[in-house]
Amino acid sequence: MKILAFAGSLREKSYNKALLRAARDLAPGGMEIELFDLAGIPLFNADLEANGDPESVAGFKEAIRQADGILIASPEYNHGMTGITKNAIDWASRPPKDPRLFGKPAGVIGASPGITGTARSQDQVRQALKSVNAPCMPHPELLLFRAKEKFDEDGKLTDDSTVKHLERYLQAFSRWVEKIND
Amino acid sequence: MKILAFAGSLREKSYNKALLRAARDLAPGGMEIELFDLAGIPLFNADLEANGDPESVAGFKEAIRQADGILIASPEYNHGMTGITKNAIDWASRPPKDPRLFGKPAGVIGASPGITGTARSQDQVRQALKSVNAPCMPHPELLLFRAKEKFDEDGKLTDDSTVKHLERYLQAFSRWVEKIND
Amino acid sequence: MKILAFAGSLREKSYNKALLRAARDLAPGGMEIELFDLAGIPLFNADLEANGDPESVAGFKEAIRQADGILIASPEYNHGMTGITKNAIDWASRPPKDPRLFGKPAGVIGASPGITGTARSQDQVRQALKSVNAPCMPHPELLLFRAKEKFDEDGKLTDDSTVKHLERYLQAFSRWVEKIND
Amino acid sequence: MKILAFAGSLREKSYNKALLRAARDLAPGGMEIELFDLAGIPLFNADLEANGDPESVAGFKEAIRQADGILIASPEYNHGMTGITKNAIDWASRPPKDPRLFGKPAGVIGASPGITGTARSQDQVRQALKSVNAPCMPHPELLLFRAKEKFDEDGKLTDDSTVKHLERYLQAFSRWVEKIND
Repeated sequence: MKILAFAGSLREKSYNKALLRAARDLAPGGMEIELFDLAGIPLFNADLEANGDPESVAGFKEAIRQADGILIASPEYNHGMTGITKNAIDWASRPPKDPRLFGKPAGVIGASPGITGTARSQDQVRQALKSVNAPCMPHPELLLFRAKEKFDEDGKLTDDSTVKHLERYLQAFSRWVEKIND
Repeated sequence: MKILAFAGSLREKSYNKALLRAARDLAPGGMEIELFDLAGIPLFNADLEANGDPESVAGFKEAIRQADGILIASPEYNHGMTGITKNAIDWASRPPKDPRLFGKPAGVIGASPGITGTARSQDQVRQALKSVNAPCMPHPELLLFRAKEKFDEDGKLTDDSTVKHLERYLQAFSRWVEKIND
Repeated sequence: MKILAFAGSLREKSYNKALLRAARDLAPGGMEIELFDLAGIPLFNADLEANGDPESVAGFKEAIRQADGILIASPEYNHGMTGITKNAIDWASRPPKDPRLFGKPAGVIGASPGITGTARSQDQVRQALKSVNAPCMPHPELLLFRAKEKFDEDGKLTDDSTVKHLERYLQAFSRWVEKIND
Repeated sequence: MKILAFAGSLREKSYNKALLRAARDLAPGGMEIELFDLAGIPLFNADLEANGDPESVAGFKEAIRQADGILIASPEYNHGMTGITKNAIDWASRPPKDPRLFGKPAGVIGASPGITGTARSQDQVRQALKSVNAPCMPHPELLLFRAKEKFDEDGKLTDDSTVKHLERYLQAFSRWVEKIND
């Protein structure tokens, strides 16, 4: 099972990138998580798209096409998902049909320095995924709050209970991807 | 009263850009609407910001600082605001404080080809504006649905009842901006 | 396949009740839709619940327990789901675990007199269903707008394209329920 | 300045009722907060309303009419506002116009046992208030998380930093009500 994962942040030391690295290391047997960096994806522009997808976008769509499921680590800026996350989904929602998110099982997690743990951001990601018919696992949630206390200085997830929660999340996600693709 | 307006689309023939041009032409006496094009604004990146705002972003923030109010024309992609809109708000929410959206009266309108008229997109814009303490006029709403029938080929707003609704919207918005800035 | 359906309105001539009657009549072979009337369900009160579920609530939960899937017709009041809909979900989310919505495949549709066709209401229903781990079919949507033009005076769905859309919705829903319960 | 306050819970020991009692005691000079109990308000039913508002509803609407502003303490059930809160707003949104929420300045706060502090619930309340043109103060937010640690057994708010935050909230709310009603 191949999972394509991306974080909605371009910052190098992003907690959400770090969370995905932890997920990659904790993936259950049979699941392989590939991290995709959104750095090269431009802002969506239908005039640009009319001349063919930029190379970075074509690569992103192809990576989605080859994946069995999508895992999004969604930071929260201003009580919602970041422009970066939404922009990636906006590109991935476009034709041609095959590389699109359409029908692809998805999961959303997120980390934030504050107390709400990206709750509002994740709900917006779900709303967008629904619109492209990417069935998003409803449960469990993973809201990593007070992120600073849970990673060490090298961005390694060191909080035991979060590690366990992430492992349970990934096991459930594995079953979800299997069920939806069945 | 100076209003800074931007549309969350980069497409040249965007209905939302066209809607803002109509708003500029229909603005009530005393209100001047300046259109800002988001084309040059890069995706938000805190590492980039650490070296100082890119010129386009600095210009955007300065335009906000000088405005008495903000008017956003918010297209709907995938049942929510566009990555472009959110990215602009994400930049504008950042320090230094003065040029931020903080405390700035705001309005949101939107046009879409479909029937829901950007209802879901506008609600997300409101959620983001709330988080930066930009009081957004609650009423009336302007949901321009089936946009194709309401503009001519040159992007001119030709639908009478929409023209009247936009005029009423702008009159209410003028009172809102005055009240909040009072 | 047994589907329990309820409308979030208590009005006798509710468009959403009428929509569920149409769904019942158009259900594909093998699917049986039972309509549940929320009239007797009181407002949720944990003090009341502490003395045991009221009879109407116990009946509602038991009907959910026996169903293979849940179909909600969600009117829109004030840009969101009705208090009636949310109250029903709030009761159904409570222990004991077995009769709960937990894990139950769900669908949401809705009818409204206006143009947005309950888009905002349905998104709130999805948010609530996610919280109780009831996987809600992401696609297709059924947003019945300008309801008055689509039902006759006896509340019969007479609009051909809506009838066809509802049929397609129910066929997709049948596959969704099967997949999730598999 | 008269503020009508209600909590979207019917439970006697509700944290949100307790939060409103704290608000009443901490109200700044010139602000009087009256607590309204939603216990008697039935679920909305347009057929019932057609025969005239039930006495409890008429009382609620009259209390709103006489208030200069509205303060809602909004618990979170299932990632959203409670059916109780929404039902109260649904009634209060109805004609006759005068006693409605229309144009009335509003504020929303909330307490929850978990970590997200009713963030999602409050956003839904804001969405509903916007629809009835009740300008809701955007900032500051008051998200009281881990409520159990912040009240004593008698429901008295004992957490110092929350007390201070609530005081600041009420001072800002006082200015908001004045500005909107000006």
